[in-house]
Amino acid sequence: MNREILRKNLTEIFSGALQAVLPDKAVKRHLSLEGSVLRIGSHEVGLDHVRRILVVGFGKASAAMAREVENILGERIDAGVVVTKYGHGLPLKRIRVMEAGHPVPDENGVRATREILDLVDSAARDDVLLCLISGGGSALMVQPREGLTLADKQQVTQLMLRGGVPIEEMNIVRKHMSAVKGGQLARLAMPARVFSLIISDVIGDLLESIASGPTAPDPSSFADAVDVLQRYEIWNELPETVRQWFEKAAGEPKAETPKPGDPLFDRVENLIIASNRSALQEAEQLAAKKGFNTLVLSSSVKGEAREIAHFFGAIAREIRQTGQPLPTPACVLAGGETTVTVRGDGKGGRNTEMALAILEDLQGLGKAAFLSAGTDGTDGPTDAAGAFAFPDSLERGRQKGLEWRHFLRNNDSYSYFDRLGDLLRTGPTGTNVMDLQILLVL
Amino acid sequence: MNREILRKNLTEIFSGALQAVLPDKAVKRHLSLEGSVLRIGSHEVGLDHVRRILVVGFGKASAAMAREVENILGERIDAGVVVTKYGHGLPLKRIRVMEAGHPVPDENGVRATREILDLVDSAARDDVLLCLISGGGSALMVQPREGLTLADKQQVTQLMLRGGVPIEEMNIVRKHMSAVKGGQLARLAMPARVFSLIISDVIGDLLESIASGPTAPDPSSFADAVDVLQRYEIWNELPETVRQWFEKAAGEPKAETPKPGDPLFDRVENLIIASNRSALQEAEQLAAKKGFNTLVLSSSVKGEAREIAHFFGAIAREIRQTGQPLPTPACVLAGGETTVTVRGDGKGGRNTEMALAILEDLQGLGKAAFLSAGTDGTDGPTDAAGAFAFPDSLERGRQKGLEWRHFLRNNDSYSYFDRLGDLLRTGPTGTNVMDLQILLVL
Repeated sequence: MNREILRKNLTEIFSGALQAVLPDKAVKRHLSLEGSVLRIGSHEVGLDHVRRILVVGFGKASAAMAREVENILGERIDAGVVVTKYGHGLPLKRIRVMEAGHPVPDENGVRATREILDLVDSAARDDVLLCLISGGGSALMVQPREGLTLADKQQVTQLMLRGGVPIEEMNIVRKHMSAVKGGQLARLAMPARVFSLIISDVIGDLLESIASGPTAPDPSSFADAVDVLQRYEIWNELPETVRQWFEKAAGEPKAETPKPGDPLFDRVENLIIASNRSALQEAEQLAAKKGFNTLVLSSSVKGEAREIAHFFGAIAREIRQTGQPLPTPACVLAGGETTVTVRGDGKGGRNTEMALAILEDLQGLGKAAFLSAGTDGTDGPTDAAGAFAFPDSLERGRQKGLEWRHFLRNNDSYSYFDRLGDLLRTGPTGTNVMDLQILLVL
Repeated sequence: MNREILRKNLTEIFSGALQAVLPDKAVKRHLSLEGSVLRIGSHEVGLDHVRRILVVGFGKASAAMAREVENILGERIDAGVVVTKYGHGLPLKRIRVMEAGHPVPDENGVRATREILDLVDSAARDDVLLCLISGGGSALMVQPREGLTLADKQQVTQLMLRGGVPIEEMNIVRKHMSAVKGGQLARLAMPARVFSLIISDVIGDLLESIASGPTAPDPSSFADAVDVLQRYEIWNELPETVRQWFEKAAGEPKAETPKPGDPLFDRVENLIIASNRSALQEAEQLAAKKGFNTLVLSSSVKGEAREIAHFFGAIAREIRQTGQPLPTPACVLAGGETTVTVRGDGKGGRNTEMALAILEDLQGLGKAAFLSAGTDGTDGPTDAAGAFAFPDSLERGRQKGLEWRHFLRNNDSYSYFDRLGDLLRTGPTGTNVMDLQILLVL
């Protein structure tokens, strides 16, 4: 029954961490109304001098965030529109919730964005604009720059995908083709006071990257966007009109997105209210309460899932053999977002694949266990959040006739753990701060 | 000149760690003669009751180890033969040093092994046999089992290489085709007292794996060897004579290598006198003396070098941003042996590749630096031990017109760092306890 106790500990630590980053909990911790004072993080706004409170939002968590904002501010909200992914809407009283296409933008996204931009554009100096930003916001926020069509944007994205352009560089180009991203929403809101409440789903919590940073300064320029297109040899494949559009924009300083140091950001506060790091902090507290020695390695773990697994395996082995980097009972925590290079045709996500890859390393380690799981509750194209790995999992698999190496080669991690009964299923959680890894060595 | 100070610190920590695992230093720490008492690790042997001291050795470090044994025991040595790789021999007085082929065994290996086996076979109850074991010993120790030829062994090895058999499973097969490996040398030495002084070059310091464990119990059996050959579908490709040989041996209990629990091992002590872990311990002490907060992650790091790099990158970022897993000035230490899946035709080893892959992660991290280097001083097919990575390396590369991504794609890490002047060149060190990684964040 060791296994069941370890599983219970892992599940409780993961669930507890999740509680800290759910949209409603995160909003509640950072937003309150005391008499006529609105507290947003460490900021205070006296509402006596505020004309209107406006709420907009983009992202998969925006409806859930908006609901909590309504709970807290109620009738103080003058108007609001948020856009979320199909199936993620909630019926609210004062904030209009719209649904649109994700990850592929669609016409509903265009319509919702237009409504949001109209509301933001109406904001005046004595208005407060609350922006609710979460992962997925980039696809839901669709408004091409003047001179470009949605079709142009889609075509450039397709060319970049085919050309193997890394996501960070793709986003530089996309930001500059949008009328909202890269701080442009904040510029449109001027001279209103802007507070963005942000759930981060990106490594390093870079404000300019979360939902493409609608209220954050953009360190990249039109020249950078053109450079990306040229370096990856996409420039010459662009439609003539799009190429001319870029050339023209790159020559006009006022076409640029707002840059770091722009005084407009004096009126803007970007607050990260939930992130992988806050989940890790909560997990660490819970594990410590349970009596574990704890070590948080990083909230920025990336790389190929099956290779990163070996690092956790190596640490597990060292803990067991030498008590380094920390003595037993040990809880090692990390988070981030790894990748899977698909070579087979099996079923699985990056979390179940990491759990599968660690199995060989865990063999013979006695009382130990590992969980990798996505905080959104959906690991890749599966209905599981992740999977549990134990020192005896390989042997249990063998007894069921499962050839581990075959499942690993075929990227079939979900199927393997499904057969073992070692998947973690939470259902969609409504939030996303990437993935968590929890390693226990007793 | 921050960079030069960081480089100096990394170099000093690495060189210091190396000192702890050099063959002569390691032997000296574990072997001494006080009057008529021979101390080997924590063991004491009264020489008044010892007839002869015999010394044998296999491995790249065996000549250097033997020289130190001569320094300590001098004329107390009655006879000795060690075999090492071409170019690694040293002129000794009482111990005969032979050179042979590595990594491909040759006839000189066969001759040397025969001499060693003759000496070991002559050992009596009141003799002490010192075995000096280090990496490479497996290829230098060549004596096929009765009924097999060297050509048979080579052919089976070729088939396994082509069949993609993992190294651990290949070694199960090879052990059973050898007359020395898998504890068989210890059996031959019976009833003499046997002390093996071992420099470990394998992950987890498994006695049965270092130089194929000539004096260690073998947990694997002939049935396991046959199972490997069948599972990887090599069985049917074997020459009929070899297949029959395996079938016969698998049916004869007394053909088995000595197993854990065999009483013969009551007369055998296997002492690991240098390992990745001892190098890390020394590195940690040195770093602490320099004022760094230290964290040893693991001595068992494995996996694809460029992916493992990201884990170190993620930890560096976390230290800078949150002071976790440890506060600055931080020194994070790890070791082991990673792999490189070669896709390009550039020049590099696993250490320079790891250093190259981390460059993007280190960008913007201020005063930080990373070194990955092989303790043998030879990273893959290069004349460097490894390479230094700094937050400004990418930018310095760009200024020299080096496109980082191109070098990474082409496995051309050596060339990149050669151009930057950031290779670590120690020359061959004469020892091997795998690789070390040192991360500094000030």
